[in-house]
Amino acid sequence: MEKKNVEYLALLRKVMKEKGIDAVIITGTDPHQSEIPPHHWRGREWLTGFESGNGTNGTAVVLQDEALCWTDSRYFIQAENQLQGTGFKMMKEDGPEAVDLIDWVTEHLNEGQTVGIDGMTFSVSFAQRLQQELNDNGIKLNTDFPQFDYIYPDRPARPDNKLFIHDETIVGESVESKMTRIMTEVKAEMANAIMLSALDDIAWATNLRTAGDINYSPVYVSFLYIDDNRRVLFVDSDKLNPEVEAHLKKYNIENRPYESVTEFVGELPKETRLLIDPEKTCRGLYDHISCTPVFGGAGVAKLKSIKNSSMLESLGKAMEKDGVALTKFFMMIEREYPTGKLTELELSKRLRALRLAEKTCVDESFAPIVGWKANGAIVHYEATAETSLTIEGDGLLLVDSGGQYQQGTTDITRTIALGTPTADERHDFTLVMKGHIALARAIFPEGTRGSQLDVLARQFLWAEGKAYYHGTGHGVGFFINCHEGPQNIRLNENPATLQPGMVTSNEPGVYYEGRYGIRCENLIVTEMDKTTEFGDFYHFKTMTLFPFDLNLFETAIMTDEEIKWVNDYHAMVRERLLPFLSADEQEWMKTKTRELKR
Amino acid sequence: MEKKNVEYLALLRKVMKEKGIDAVIITGTDPHQSEIPPHHWRGREWLTGFESGNGTNGTAVVLQDEALCWTDSRYFIQAENQLQGTGFKMMKEDGPEAVDLIDWVTEHLNEGQTVGIDGMTFSVSFAQRLQQELNDNGIKLNTDFPQFDYIYPDRPARPDNKLFIHDETIVGESVESKMTRIMTEVKAEMANAIMLSALDDIAWATNLRTAGDINYSPVYVSFLYIDDNRRVLFVDSDKLNPEVEAHLKKYNIENRPYESVTEFVGELPKETRLLIDPEKTCRGLYDHISCTPVFGGAGVAKLKSIKNSSMLESLGKAMEKDGVALTKFFMMIEREYPTGKLTELELSKRLRALRLAEKTCVDESFAPIVGWKANGAIVHYEATAETSLTIEGDGLLLVDSGGQYQQGTTDITRTIALGTPTADERHDFTLVMKGHIALARAIFPEGTRGSQLDVLARQFLWAEGKAYYHGTGHGVGFFINCHEGPQNIRLNENPATLQPGMVTSNEPGVYYEGRYGIRCENLIVTEMDKTTEFGDFYHFKTMTLFPFDLNLFETAIMTDEEIKWVNDYHAMVRERLLPFLSADEQEWMKTKTRELKR
Repeated sequence: MEKKNVEYLALLRKVMKEKGIDAVIITGTDPHQSEIPPHHWRGREWLTGFESGNGTNGTAVVLQDEALCWTDSRYFIQAENQLQGTGFKMMKEDGPEAVDLIDWVTEHLNEGQTVGIDGMTFSVSFAQRLQQELNDNGIKLNTDFPQFDYIYPDRPARPDNKLFIHDETIVGESVESKMTRIMTEVKAEMANAIMLSALDDIAWATNLRTAGDINYSPVYVSFLYIDDNRRVLFVDSDKLNPEVEAHLKKYNIENRPYESVTEFVGELPKETRLLIDPEKTCRGLYDHISCTPVFGGAGVAKLKSIKNSSMLESLGKAMEKDGVALTKFFMMIEREYPTGKLTELELSKRLRALRLAEKTCVDESFAPIVGWKANGAIVHYEATAETSLTIEGDGLLLVDSGGQYQQGTTDITRTIALGTPTADERHDFTLVMKGHIALARAIFPEGTRGSQLDVLARQFLWAEGKAYYHGTGHGVGFFINCHEGPQNIRLNENPATLQPGMVTSNEPGVYYEGRYGIRCENLIVTEMDKTTEFGDFYHFKTMTLFPFDLNLFETAIMTDEEIKWVNDYHAMVRERLLPFLSADEQEWMKTKTRELKR
Repeated sequence: MEKKNVEYLALLRKVMKEKGIDAVIITGTDPHQSEIPPHHWRGREWLTGFESGNGTNGTAVVLQDEALCWTDSRYFIQAENQLQGTGFKMMKEDGPEAVDLIDWVTEHLNEGQTVGIDGMTFSVSFAQRLQQELNDNGIKLNTDFPQFDYIYPDRPARPDNKLFIHDETIVGESVESKMTRIMTEVKAEMANAIMLSALDDIAWATNLRTAGDINYSPVYVSFLYIDDNRRVLFVDSDKLNPEVEAHLKKYNIENRPYESVTEFVGELPKETRLLIDPEKTCRGLYDHISCTPVFGGAGVAKLKSIKNSSMLESLGKAMEKDGVALTKFFMMIEREYPTGKLTELELSKRLRALRLAEKTCVDESFAPIVGWKANGAIVHYEATAETSLTIEGDGLLLVDSGGQYQQGTTDITRTIALGTPTADERHDFTLVMKGHIALARAIFPEGTRGSQLDVLARQFLWAEGKAYYHGTGHGVGFFINCHEGPQNIRLNENPATLQPGMVTSNEPGVYYEGRYGIRCENLIVTEMDKTTEFGDFYHFKTMTLFPFDLNLFETAIMTDEEIKWVNDYHAMVRERLLPFLSADEQEWMKTKTRELKR
């Protein structure tokens, strides 16, 4: 059966002919290289019919006689299905049949032909790699081919959600102070101005947020220019209200139309040395820059990653609210599980409702993972009508979720047993927890990278020939993106060091395809531990507040210190959450945090 | 007081004028980038008067009106002394007053002037970086200025030690097999021939060794060319004897004069794609290559790093011989310590004699470190007449040493208490051992890098705000260099993974300046542990055979598993060494390996 995409493809090919474009490459990103782009920039989904969760996965290539869409192994089955009858053929990005997209394009075009891209949706770095390879083969690159402007009549508009001020008593730092610190970083990189493109950097720098521009993150669509004398926020004026306008005025931030940013960078004085991050800035903007661009800008991400004491205190409050929502959620599961009517989808909905009942919770911080038994073993699972299992019989339930509270962003995973857990399930859960505890208790010197500590969380699984292949921890934003850099705790090397104030997740796990999955996740913040003749040493403080399932611990393989850690943690959870719980919730919490004994 | 070096300097300046050289840069390396070069290539020491242990540290720069010698912080005091009256001024390579050598040269020369170097003593990579910076400043580089050919009348000849065959029953692999495997690596890098410059690579590939060319390593001065049809060893003919000539003939290896290598690479057929390692190949050789050079060649180092079962079985025998020598050594210390006459220097000499008493021990594997009390805290200590302490009173003695046995290379550190150890000394020793044991017991999946496991050895020290700043482990050669790549276990990232058959050291420590140092070192080999649904897992097997000092363990901070590891290890040491010991040595060994109890 032929789908409408065949018509769209014909339209695109007609425009390509008119504009002298022999091949077009279409990514799923936006001008800000967002992890989850707004629908306005999801033209690739519309064109190909392939919809990959967050929208960024999937790159299309169209020639007059070929139409292809690249994706990775997580999506092979889904893409194969969705691309049926669209005129597009699936191509594999990874695995044994992988084909390199740029290689394919250079091999299928002749010298002198032209590749067209919409420069606004390609990072400077990616476009540069592309251009280099095309050049080497005598193929031209036209970076000004905004294909969807010509062929996508019902294209969704840019989001028009109103901005609001992120309370500076929560943030603990004025915009003025942030601007000053940013300019210090800018000058350290031998530049005198900066253009921020990453939406989380801009939200952080301006103490402004919105709801709805981007799923699961309160950032807003904009660009931000800063130099010693001028600050310009490029944002659609329908997103502003008088309060926000006053906030901008207070900090001497001009606001200009979003789309005027390209013109603006084309008119900057020659002596401007404009710092841009080539991974986060789009080629379309870069093409317009008339002054000297300076590549760099990692300094802002580092400033953003270090949370001050006001933010950390506030994050503690967000954790309390999150713990209360989770208490209601897991109590409800225990109550209703015997009915045999709960499903993964139903639980996802209920969890969202419980979190959003708190008025300062603007959104969830990512699509929740509620995986029963075998579905818990799918690391990036999201229940759909087709996959959603009914929660019945004995098994493990894995719930990974989080909230975007104005007081901070949460991200927590708990794995609980419903019915009677098996010895294997308890043993594996305990191995995961032993790793979780080892990382939580680590003390390490200044300058330590996450990749150095990662083994602490994996060692007990490895000793039994078990492993997980995702990272142990990612950086977490503060009422911004749930995933942020520069630090992480992974197998792979990352030169960013763990610094006081950085919030990172601690989430080891283990997964058996077709059987069950276990993951235990808290957020941890790096703090000063002590200064000795050997230098400064840091430790982690656990921020998340919710008990682990006491029925899943095999105490025989735990050390006294590990058991003590669990009991101390549960005592803290109990103490912090009890004041916010009803009488029956308090009873439940006391049971769930009772002493773990051998 | 003026030293003779002033005359040498005048001679050099005269030749520079004659040859049109405005500045000369002189390194301490040889055409093979050896860690310890033969005296023939130590002209920099002769010229400047600064002698840095192994000879490689120290880079001289001479202009008509300036003469400088760069060194690093380990040598600041020594260099300052030795350079007095030589006409040379010391420059700092590191620390707050560091000056970059290449920057200095470019700043002190004018456009159009010429820097001269002896290309045979610069790696291709270093010369390339130098040339790039000079070019950027309009300065010329002459890579054919072999300064010591003109001005060093009594220059020591190249070493003429005879080669001998490394018994193939020990090596477990014929030269033919190695050549075949090397050519497979060469073709994988899209080349069809290789020129080996690193002396350990050549010794490994040819199953040939010598004694005396290089201190502490049985490698011999040579180059080795290999392609599918030809194998050429460039070596001085006075190093050969009929047996070695027959060995070369057996494997179709031509031998040519050492110095003809430059002519040879100038006459290779145009279609030759010659693989060279730019870090190990000298610029002088590179300058003569007439065919296509291909940069790469790390494959040979990887082949060399993986020891086969025959080598590992043999290494076990070397460990037995080493254990016997160490038994005699430490028994002697206990016996003679009460006389108050032992010194660090005396112990160094005795230890060497005890090792070399075994006829298959060709040399020590590095300059031994015998450090009493405060001297044990100097990580790269080597006792001299000026520094050597008398072993008296209570204290810790650190002995780091090794032997070059034909059966394999050893490297071991033991720290023992003489008199009564303090509680701090015992506590620190136990922290170091807990780390040593954690690494020794690690199990990890295929693909794990040393930097991931490093924390296991450091974690207990870190928990108390203590640390050491050297690597935890280095790769160890097999009757070649004691330090070899590609793998290691360090704080710093290194992409090389730990593979079965690789031998690495396990040597955590802790050091208190002016008080004492502790290091505990065994060699460990990576072995297959098990294959599970999660892949292949490896463990380490400890190869070294000698007890740790039981008087230094604080069992109160050890787990049952740690105490069991010590007892199991000591039981193995006892079982393996007893057959080779005399009656009183057996008694001593039994006492030293008695059960460790709480």
